[in-house]
Formats: sequence, C-alpha cells, structure tokens
Amino acid sequence: MPYTLVLLRHGQSTWNEQNLFTGWVDVPVSALGLAQARHAGELIKRSARLPDVVHTSLLRRAIATADAALDAADRHWVPVRRTWRLNERHYGALQGLDKAATAARVGEAQVRVWRRSYAAVPPPLGEAERAAQDADPRYAGVETPGAESLEIVVRRMLPYWTEGIVPDLRAGRTVLVAAHGNSLRGLIKELDGLSDEEVVGLDLPTGVPILYELGEDMKPLRKGGRRLDETEG
Amino acid sequence: MPYTLVLLRHGQSTWNEQNLFTGWVDVPVSALGLAQARHAGELIKRSARLPDVVHTSLLRRAIATADAALDAADRHWVPVRRTWRLNERHYGALQGLDKAATAARVGEAQVRVWRRSYAAVPPPLGEAERAAQDADPRYAGVETPGAESLEIVVRRMLPYWTEGIVPDLRAGRTVLVAAHGNSLRGLIKELDGLSDEEVVGLDLPTGVPILYELGEDMKPLRKGGRRLDETEG
Repeated sequence: MPYTLVLLRHGQSTWNEQNLFTGWVDVPVSALGLAQARHAGELIKRSARLPDVVHTSLLRRAIATADAALDAADRHWVPVRRTWRLNERHYGALQGLDKAATAARVGEAQVRVWRRSYAAVPPPLGEAERAAQDADPRYAGVETPGAESLEIVVRRMLPYWTEGIVPDLRAGRTVLVAAHGNSLRGLIKELDGLSDEEVVGLDLPTGVPILYELGEDMKPLRKGGRRLDETEG
Repeated sequence: MPYTLVLLRHGQSTWNEQNLFTGWVDVPVSALGLAQARHAGELIKRSARLPDVVHTSLLRRAIATADAALDAADRHWVPVRRTWRLNERHYGALQGLDKAATAARVGEAQVRVWRRSYAAVPPPLGEAERAAQDADPRYAGVETPGAESLEIVVRRMLPYWTEGIVPDLRAGRTVLVAAHGNSLRGLIKELDGLSDEEVVGLDLPTGVPILYELGEDMKPLRKGGRRLDETEG
C-alpha cells in the first residue's frame, strides 16, 4: 500500500491581494483565502485521503489554511506539528515592498532574478528588522536568515522532511503539509527529483490539494502527483 | 516563580444558542462564540500570560476557540496537544434533545438531577448511536462512554492533568487549556480542592480566560484563580 501525502499551498493572503513581497511577514489569509482553504478541505474529504496528522509552518496563513481545510474535512481533531522549516522563503529587505513599484525602481530583470533564479539571494533585512525577528519568541533557538534563495529554503526544509514528515508516513499516517509556494517547491523538488532549473519554473496553485502516493523509497508512484480538483466534474 | 495555567471554556456553540443538550456531539461555535474566542485572546495578550503550548479536547468548539484566541494573541504558532480526556461530559441519550422540552416531559427535578448532581448518569446512547461513535476514527483505541456523570468526567480527565499538562507546566511553559464546562469543572475541582457538592455548583463563564498561578505542589497560590476580564476598565 502506498504512503499518502497531501500538499496544500495556503489560500490567498491579504498581501497577495495587495501584490506585496511577503516572505516571513505574518499576514493573515484574505476572505477569499479562507474560502479557498475550506474548499480544499472539501476536496480532501471527497478524495477520502483523510489526514491523520498535519504539518504546518509557523506563519498564520498556512496555519489558518490548515485549520479551515481540516475543519471542512472533519479532521480538525488530528495531531498538529509546526516548524519554521516549512516557512515561506525569506525575502529579506524586499518584504513589505510593492512588487510593481520594486520592478519600476530596480528593473523587471532584477526582480525576475530574485524571484526566479535558484541561487539568487535578495538584499537582507536591515539591522532593526533583524533584531525584531530575533526577538520573536517563535524563533527562539533558531538561527534565522536575513534573506533566502530557493536553494537555501531547500537546504533548511529537507531535514524536516526526513526527520519530521517521513516518520509519520512510515507509521502509515496520511500526512497533510500546509505550507507555502517555496517550501512546497523545495519538497516537490526532492519528491520528483527536479533539477534546479525545473523547480524555479514550477508554479503551485493556491488552495488546491496535491496528492502524492509514495513507494517504499518515498518517491512518487506518479511524478507530479495529482491535483485533487482534477477529479471534479 | 509560579507555574502559569490559563483555562478557557469554549465560546457559545450553535447548540448552546438553540438550548440543546450537546455533550460529545461535535457542533461548531456560533458567530458570537467566535467573537468571544477572539476577545479571550485579546485578554490573554493584554495579561502578558502568553501560552507556550495549548491543550484542547477533540471537539471543534474547543478547537476553534483555541485557534481564534491564539490567533488574536499572536500565539497561533505554539505547539498543540489534543485529547478526548478534555471532551465535554457525555450526555448519553439526552444529546440532541431540547432542554426545555425534556424538562416538560420528564420534569424539572429529573433534569436538575442529571445536570446538577455529581454522580447521576443520564440514560446512555442507543445502540445505533453507540456504534456510530465507536466508528469515529478520532476515538480509535479509546473505550468511549455511553453517558457520563461529572464524577466519571473527573476520573477520565485527571490522568491527563497529571501526565499531559503538569509536565508542560514543570518545563516552565505557560499552558492554555481550551475545553468545556464539565472537563474544566473537573480540573478546577482538583486545583481548588472542591468537594463533590461544591463543584456541581460551580459555573464557568464562556470565553473568559481564567488565570491560575500554581506553586511547586501544583496547587493555586490563590483559590479560584483570576478571571482575565476582571482587570478590564
């Protein structure tokens, strides 16, 4: 019997709506995002791949998405595990800036590099923001980044895949991971064996659960998994 | 330094609103209940007794209350532990019945005994309902009751206090327990050393956090704790 993993990118956040770089800034989901999350839960329920455990980042847009999806799937009572290693990519000094205004200032090409190259690191947080981040109790004991490339995200996410998620899968649990565009890209890179070039081109839908069935080697039986909205009709 | 425990009875549920016996039936909080939960989180934030961990029952009215309160207190990211031992008292065959209609049928005195005596057990669930309850995956491995007295609630709750909550307190964590009228009564009986007669007369406010500071013996420095809405003004 294959192992069952469901990936869920959080629903729209208020800053997605306003077209701002978000990263580790802890903004809420929008009303649309909440509705997307509930719909995701209904898709999960209909698929009968009911989570036995959920893993989330430490950011409220992933947490609220998980809560709403699980409630809609009648699995609000499952055990919950949280980790900063599933957080969104840290966007450094870009966090809070308008994407269009930034492109107008530094050029489309530069923004494209920050957003779509595997190894490019945006300018880091300033000292005051860095101090505020280090004072945040949720990151106590964590050496937090000032900015991250996708490569760095993959590197800090992978230990959690191996030590946090795989043990739940091996125990026979259906696992829901509610996280972010870039932490989930990193996870899919590992699962599907994508190259650095392939993963930067990967776009994940928000609020649509992706089902992976995995073999004993923890590799997908079907590359790319299956979007749970594909069976609708 | 004392140990810090915050108790929170869930906000109004849709069945509280409709005056039905609820027990283990998994009804949602009402819009008012959700607002009460968020307000509770604001009181917790203002008190600066910020939870490091939350314990809830397996019922969505306690889970949603915890989620909303923690979000309002900016502590949505803390570890979560859930247990059926914090569930509401099981109301057996009364579950789903209208409280007023039941009193009209069996008499006010009988309803008062079921609701306000320590040892009285209501009539148990019927066979079909019992089978449905036993098929609920959240109770896998649990010998579930068909109906409970407050005495039975105290007996099944206490092991979780000792083995689940006290270790978090001893580790120096501020603990939030989001649960139900009767499971919290049971906990307060233990904390404050109430007699069987005293505990049945205890009424807990919905959606108001109660702060207990505990000594090395895990007994309150101040009997009854302190309602966090008392400091408002």
